Amino acid sequence: MKHTETVEITGHLMDTGILSRVLNDIREYGGDWVITGIDVGHDAGDTSTATINVWTDDDEALQRLLMRLQTHGVNMVDPGEAGVEVADRDGVFPDGFYSTTNLETKVRIGGRWVEVDNPEMDCGLIVDDSGASLRVFTLPMSDVRSGMKVVCGAAGIKVTVPVAAKSDGAFGFMESDVSSEKPQAVLVRQVAEGMREAKAAGKKVLWVGGPGVVHTGAAPAMVALVEAGFVDVLFAGNALATHDIESALYGTSLGVDLAQGRGVEHGHEHHIRALNTIRKAGSIRDAVDQGVLTGGIMHSLVTHGKHFVLVGSVRDDGPLPDVYTDVLEGQRAMRGSLTDVGFCLMVATMLHSVATGNILPASIPLVCVDINPATVTKLADRGSSQARGIVTDVGLFLEQLAMELVPAYRNHRT
Amino acid sequence: MKHTETVEITGHLMDTGILSRVLNDIREYGGDWVITGIDVGHDAGDTSTATINVWTDDDEALQRLLMRLQTHGVNMVDPGEAGVEVADRDGVFPDGFYSTTNLETKVRIGGRWVEVDNPEMDCGLIVDDSGASLRVFTLPMSDVRSGMKVVCGAAGIKVTVPVAAKSDGAFGFMESDVSSEKPQAVLVRQVAEGMREAKAAGKKVLWVGGPGVVHTGAAPAMVALVEAGFVDVLFAGNALATHDIESALYGTSLGVDLAQGRGVEHGHEHHIRALNTIRKAGSIRDAVDQGVLTGGIMHSLVTHGKHFVLVGSVRDDGPLPDVYTDVLEGQRAMRGSLTDVGFCLMVATMLHSVATGNILPASIPLVCVDINPATVTKLADRGSSQARGIVTDVGLFLEQLAMELVPAYRNHRT
Amino acid sequence: MKHTETVEITGHLMDTGILSRVLNDIREYGGDWVITGIDVGHDAGDTSTATINVWTDDDEALQRLLMRLQTHGVNMVDPGEAGVEVADRDGVFPDGFYSTTNLETKVRIGGRWVEVDNPEMDCGLIVDDSGASLRVFTLPMSDVRSGMKVVCGAAGIKVTVPVAAKSDGAFGFMESDVSSEKPQAVLVRQVAEGMREAKAAGKKVLWVGGPGVVHTGAAPAMVALVEAGFVDVLFAGNALATHDIESALYGTSLGVDLAQGRGVEHGHEHHIRALNTIRKAGSIRDAVDQGVLTGGIMHSLVTHGKHFVLVGSVRDDGPLPDVYTDVLEGQRAMRGSLTDVGFCLMVATMLHSVATGNILPASIPLVCVDINPATVTKLADRGSSQARGIVTDVGLFLEQLAMELVPAYRNHRT
Amino acid sequence: MKHTETVEITGHLMDTGILSRVLNDIREYGGDWVITGIDVGHDAGDTSTATINVWTDDDEALQRLLMRLQTHGVNMVDPGEAGVEVADRDGVFPDGFYSTTNLETKVRIGGRWVEVDNPEMDCGLIVDDSGASLRVFTLPMSDVRSGMKVVCGAAGIKVTVPVAAKSDGAFGFMESDVSSEKPQAVLVRQVAEGMREAKAAGKKVLWVGGPGVVHTGAAPAMVALVEAGFVDVLFAGNALATHDIESALYGTSLGVDLAQGRGVEHGHEHHIRALNTIRKAGSIRDAVDQGVLTGGIMHSLVTHGKHFVLVGSVRDDGPLPDVYTDVLEGQRAMRGSLTDVGFCLMVATMLHSVATGNILPASIPLVCVDINPATVTKLADRGSSQARGIVTDVGLFLEQLAMELVPAYRNHRT
Repeated sequence: MKHTETVEITGHLMDTGILSRVLNDIREYGGDWVITGIDVGHDAGDTSTATINVWTDDDEALQRLLMRLQTHGVNMVDPGEAGVEVADRDGVFPDGFYSTTNLETKVRIGGRWVEVDNPEMDCGLIVDDSGASLRVFTLPMSDVRSGMKVVCGAAGIKVTVPVAAKSDGAFGFMESDVSSEKPQAVLVRQVAEGMREAKAAGKKVLWVGGPGVVHTGAAPAMVALVEAGFVDVLFAGNALATHDIESALYGTSLGVDLAQGRGVEHGHEHHIRALNTIRKAGSIRDAVDQGVLTGGIMHSLVTHGKHFVLVGSVRDDGPLPDVYTDVLEGQRAMRGSLTDVGFCLMVATMLHSVATGNILPASIPLVCVDINPATVTKLADRGSSQARGIVTDVGLFLEQLAMELVPAYRNHRT
Repeated sequence: MKHTETVEITGHLMDTGILSRVLNDIREYGGDWVITGIDVGHDAGDTSTATINVWTDDDEALQRLLMRLQTHGVNMVDPGEAGVEVADRDGVFPDGFYSTTNLETKVRIGGRWVEVDNPEMDCGLIVDDSGASLRVFTLPMSDVRSGMKVVCGAAGIKVTVPVAAKSDGAFGFMESDVSSEKPQAVLVRQVAEGMREAKAAGKKVLWVGGPGVVHTGAAPAMVALVEAGFVDVLFAGNALATHDIESALYGTSLGVDLAQGRGVEHGHEHHIRALNTIRKAGSIRDAVDQGVLTGGIMHSLVTHGKHFVLVGSVRDDGPLPDVYTDVLEGQRAMRGSLTDVGFCLMVATMLHSVATGNILPASIPLVCVDINPATVTKLADRGSSQARGIVTDVGLFLEQLAMELVPAYRNHRT
Repeated sequence: MKHTETVEITGHLMDTGILSRVLNDIREYGGDWVITGIDVGHDAGDTSTATINVWTDDDEALQRLLMRLQTHGVNMVDPGEAGVEVADRDGVFPDGFYSTTNLETKVRIGGRWVEVDNPEMDCGLIVDDSGASLRVFTLPMSDVRSGMKVVCGAAGIKVTVPVAAKSDGAFGFMESDVSSEKPQAVLVRQVAEGMREAKAAGKKVLWVGGPGVVHTGAAPAMVALVEAGFVDVLFAGNALATHDIESALYGTSLGVDLAQGRGVEHGHEHHIRALNTIRKAGSIRDAVDQGVLTGGIMHSLVTHGKHFVLVGSVRDDGPLPDVYTDVLEGQRAMRGSLTDVGFCLMVATMLHSVATGNILPASIPLVCVDINPATVTKLADRGSSQARGIVTDVGLFLEQLAMELVPAYRNHRT
Repeated sequence: MKHTETVEITGHLMDTGILSRVLNDIREYGGDWVITGIDVGHDAGDTSTATINVWTDDDEALQRLLMRLQTHGVNMVDPGEAGVEVADRDGVFPDGFYSTTNLETKVRIGGRWVEVDNPEMDCGLIVDDSGASLRVFTLPMSDVRSGMKVVCGAAGIKVTVPVAAKSDGAFGFMESDVSSEKPQAVLVRQVAEGMREAKAAGKKVLWVGGPGVVHTGAAPAMVALVEAGFVDVLFAGNALATHDIESALYGTSLGVDLAQGRGVEHGHEHHIRALNTIRKAGSIRDAVDQGVLTGGIMHSLVTHGKHFVLVGSVRDDGPLPDVYTDVLEGQRAMRGSLTDVGFCLMVATMLHSVATGNILPASIPLVCVDINPATVTKLADRGSSQARGIVTDVGLFLEQLAMELVPAYRNHRT
């Protein structure tokens, strides 16, 4: 017996390829489809709406398919009311829980649509009716507690895809294209513009960085951007912070290497001693306060009152005392730092870029810069469809970005 | 004033390039050198010995340089006695602590040489004279406790480079070469031989794997190798285990995809539900015992009584209940699983390969297989100089390895 | 003033993303569009037809746009009659010449549709009415001669996209996906099946190869495939042939290297002497006949009466006497060898793969195997949309392919 | 019976790793060795000299080995007189011909040392005693003519390795290191300095470029460098010139794409029409003279009287009328353009970089810039050991280089 549902999707269906992705997903989830209606609008700029009948062999598969399709912004024509079940165990959702997208989401409960507080993908939806007004929020699997009310099934849920600034907006570089064959100077200007717009709107700029920022000699450029107010929050691992601090502490010798382009020594000596020095001070801030750490990216973040979240990984030495060694606590700290973020730049890190992509709402513009095309591709594969990728040299890119955003930085070169 | 020391190194100095790396390191650490003697032996097969005077501007730099040189097997001609200081704070070494290499190490204390228990790089050396006999062991920075006695300075320490099976041994493929232009079928045979030798010597085979093992369709080959006894321990992250379990749980649909080569769905649906299912069962073993998990790599490890250590990362969903979310605890569990390991194969993971390279003694043969040359290069850069890299397709490599080591596996193909 | 045309396209528009590529191209060519009708059929398997009004500011741009759209299989609803002009100079087309696609093409002349003889992209269409029946054929720019009649403008032309063996055919692996995360063993079987089908249909199998075939140790596998009849034509450069011959001539030493996996010596000595030896013999065939060359890929091609076309490049040493040093003559020889080709496998060469992609009709199945994702991506970018890419190790891939297609080859391994 | 020779090498043997490469090569050529003497000098800066006995099983192998070793600057202690044989056939050297290196070379004939005119690797040495004074020059295999006198065997030949500007010179960035983790801004300055030095010494700057120069938007930067006199000669293929011309001819639309960073259309339309347009004009210079071509790199080369050599490849469309379609003629034109070249920059092309590396004397500083590490690695593998590699974004690199070398270019940005 076929289990059937009618769904619809609205948007620039014809020229974005989104429809083909939707139909492919139906097949991959073992379903089938027929397009029952398509309205292409009158002008090229108009959005189109497609109505699609989808069916699978059993209801469980259909529910999973419907949730999957929501990641593309496909909603049921007649969503009905959301189902709710109570979690009976810490850290485990009820079977059939609704798995979230990173899109703006509404849930229909008791006949009215409730906006979900904090869109994040791969979470559950918790219904909290304990307060004056009913609230629905996303929660990661590991944080659910017995007794919480969890939305189950795909019914009663509607998602909204962010309005694409397609082709005409200030931030309109091509979505699907990860390419090293791009006029890179133009891309620098577009990222600068995205940051300026976010700041003008009173939003924060979030950076996600890997140690390549230091290795490519871009630390001075990033320091200039911190000082000029274009870095509000930094997500990174132990490596970026340690390499930066190592470079600041053992400035003479490492400075020579950097200035002469001879390649940075990755040897354990400076690295492991830098870690021990900061651990002895107590924390990065303590090291700054004690006059132990007097330069570099971390120093500028501390002295300008900016926020950073460092999360550890299995390959870490040390680590620095500021590093969250428990990755779940690290993720929580990252989530807690997303408020008011209006632009996100990811530089030279696959691990932290994917981690941030996992928790970032789809509505926040996101640019990923790496010399390795695989990093950007992976990011998009994991669901961060809003990600724009730039395959370029991180050192030269940040140098140019600083020259674009910080007039005084230009002079430093001469 | 110059601070000087006379050091020596013995080995195949002329034909391995090791001497040039030593001399470069002296320069990079701000020192200078003169070769005062060189004995090249009589035959091509003889080892050479070089005696070198090194000097720097201050003693601290000299100590650091001497420690650095030990990573290449360079010892002081007259090492003297080791210095020892007491740690005055948890998680912090005394300034000037001796930072370890991953080589066999001896420490001279009270006039006699004591062998270090467990070589590991970037650690401190703890002197324990509380028992009947004096003991020296490596300890990572985060595990040092106030009151422990820590070796400081480079004096009184000797390291031994593993005897290179160079050119003639069963496992003699070229050290410095990371290349995709290699006769790959031959390399498969050499890795098989390395595993057979380890098993014949009563040693364990350690695997370090990434999710690419599952994505490339190599799970059946790896299961065959587990069953045939060629996988004793697995180090991995949440991803390999979850993708494997996901593939086992949602076999029908994913099975079709894998069998038809259409690419595996990375979507959140199956992934996030597989995690919830195992969390509900309690653990991977519980899921096997309850009949929930009935196939795949993790299932075969459990049913054959093999050991695995899963360590989390900041990008994890879930994670599986078996995953260490605290990376320091995860590192401790990995360290605790190295006993009797005689061969290590790293497949398709940069993060866990580097993490394992950090804690593995240099005496254990180590092969790293990845389609991405950067993974192997990075491993060698971080100090795992014994690493042999094979740039190839992981799926086809493991398929061939299983056919080489497991006669019955050949038939499965037809 | 707007210049307008109504075009239509039929196919699996909804689930292939082709429509979005068409609409993007209209914008990139400075045009605009409105979809005036769309017929999605009744069943999921039905093809859809879209009718689109396109316009630009001037007629020349419109003509160029219409030609561009034909590369996607978009035809004018009312194509009219083809325009013809006479070339007035050797090697130069008239302005406004119709630039061809690699699709099956028909031209309307004198009220009837004439099939174009040999589809090839980026050529002109020559009308030859000198014989009994009117003939239209493609001709590259450099071969046009003064006085030839050349089709101009987009009018009077219709193209047909090959019937996609989508999802259900024997050769249905995903079109758009260039990925190293694929179950590679399955892909080997699909390529084997494609070759068997071509041979069963009385067609030829064309190989395009780079020197990586020799370096990865795959020469024995390829020789087995030549002997078993799965290599009818080889397109390559000087390098593949020279490395193969070098390996055959200096077998002992190089053989040892290959057998021990120590990496092949690229040194000038063997290489340059192998070239001189074959030049002295007169040709590769002469060297075989004289007993100078007794093994390897080129030897097996000669002794089994197979055809090869070697075309030179600016980096060549020697070259071998069989190499076309004039690239236009080389292209002509390649074109002349395409008759009856029913399957094409490209292995480990970007230069010759792109060159072959340029002249191959879209109707011939095409698989490109390389460890470098960029090779396959580039191929697809250049217009060979039928190309399927496999990112894998060439040595292991050909080893597996030989085992799949040549039963006797399996035994050779033991 | 062993065939033995005593050879010696002088240089920074200890800290460059050159000795280990020499000894490895002896083994790879089936020989064996014993170091009979080594003189390490007194100071760190002193050169060392090693004396080595080498032997093989037969004399032919020994001769080949001795020639191979000369690529590293290893000479016989007692070279004797050169042997000379007469070529008896066009395009074929006598067996046992001496195969050249790219090092400064002297040949001993009639008791005196004659300097070889034009060092180039993989050629033969022709002795011309027809003139007043005896002359020896390199000649590629394809250009030898019957009756010419060719040096055979390794006797009577001495090579000199260029004085390494190691570590202290203006152009001292690390030789062996191909890395994307380098402070890129510093490398830009070093390349600028290398160019300035060459110009100050009255030498020419040779550029070798691929189409990526245009795709990355670097054409304006390169035009500025042409105008400022930092581009004397350009070696390229059909693609760079055609893409540049295409961009200049169809400026409006392509200009928009470039300015907005939307990715350049590689479609056949503009490309194939640009080719036809220049073919119609007669040549690139004719197109400039006729006012057809008014901008871009090729235009600036023509209007500033700079020289370019375009050599075709098998994948070319068109090609442009200026392109050598015969690769041997192209190589001859390139050789003819090397006079007075004092610095060579290779940008974004593997094919033409390797081709140029093949003919360039080792004494000319050579920098290779590419986003793909494989390009630089390949260059070094082929024998261009003087090559310094920079893995970075070509567009940003040339932008920075122009800002460094052309003060006025800085202003253009604002």
